[in-house]
Amino acid sequence: MNQNSTQRYFEDLAVGETFNLGAETVTEAEIISFAEQYDPQPIHTDPEAAAESMFGTLVASGWHTAAISMRRFVDGIVEKAGIAIIAGVEVENLQWRRPIKPGDVLNADAEIVGLEEWNEERGTVQFELEMRTDDGDPVLQLTKRVLVARK
Amino acid sequence: MNQNSTQRYFEDLAVGETFNLGAETVTEAEIISFAEQYDPQPIHTDPEAAAESMFGTLVASGWHTAAISMRRFVDGIVEKAGIAIIAGVEVENLQWRRPIKPGDVLNADAEIVGLEEWNEERGTVQFELEMRTDDGDPVLQLTKRVLVARK
Repeated sequence: MNQNSTQRYFEDLAVGETFNLGAETVTEAEIISFAEQYDPQPIHTDPEAAAESMFGTLVASGWHTAAISMRRFVDGIVEKAGIAIIAGVEVENLQWRRPIKPGDVLNADAEIVGLEEWNEERGTVQFELEMRTDDGDPVLQLTKRVLVARK
Repeated sequence: MNQNSTQRYFEDLAVGETFNLGAETVTEAEIISFAEQYDPQPIHTDPEAAAESMFGTLVASGWHTAAISMRRFVDGIVEKAGIAIIAGVEVENLQWRRPIKPGDVLNADAEIVGLEEWNEERGTVQFELEMRTDDGDPVLQLTKRVLVARK
């Protein structure tokens, strides 16, 4: 899966290292498709009903925004940076800062904020991940702890 | 959206109240479909590669499991219990306890663990949500804070 020729392991990482996870545009069709399966509420599935809501527009399910942050993480951390992720362990402090509407561009970044040896084969790495719109408005933030292979 | 004739507001809720959010079976097709879009790693998208992994089988993306917990929450809390949810605010302590494989049945429950007035129109309600397999093994737990309308 790794398009980068250099796989990076637990020992290769340092607290403070930052990663640009790229950007993507959220479409109305994707918002509705996700929500019909996982969060079927009119503000996420029905543009007309959503226009009458407190948001004034269709908005993405918060779990859809969270799923997009995972796609950015896979593209930026697993594929591009080549970090040997094994599995996620937990997420702390998952906050939605503003609703996402069709056409919003989500830019994602991550920073390593913690490193801990787990056993002889693995370590845990803590990332702070943030997504912002093109205007710089915070959209979502979370801190995740993942298992990474050791050399 | 509420199929229950009685809409329930912030004032109608009490700490300690529990809700059965029903169950659903996770299919291989759904695991692959979610992961191809949001978490494209071989353990989630490629049954043959996954069979060679530490899990020995295809497993669902953690964010897929989290999205399923939202579907259970909408069905059980918004639709069945009729609670006047406005929006999610944040999630704390999102933990994946074991991987989900095709055919696993996820049973979900929630308990109200906190109530706080927000303003004259809304309160925040804190729910602890847990999903377990039919064998009673914990799968996922999280604590979420949501805005609920006042009377």
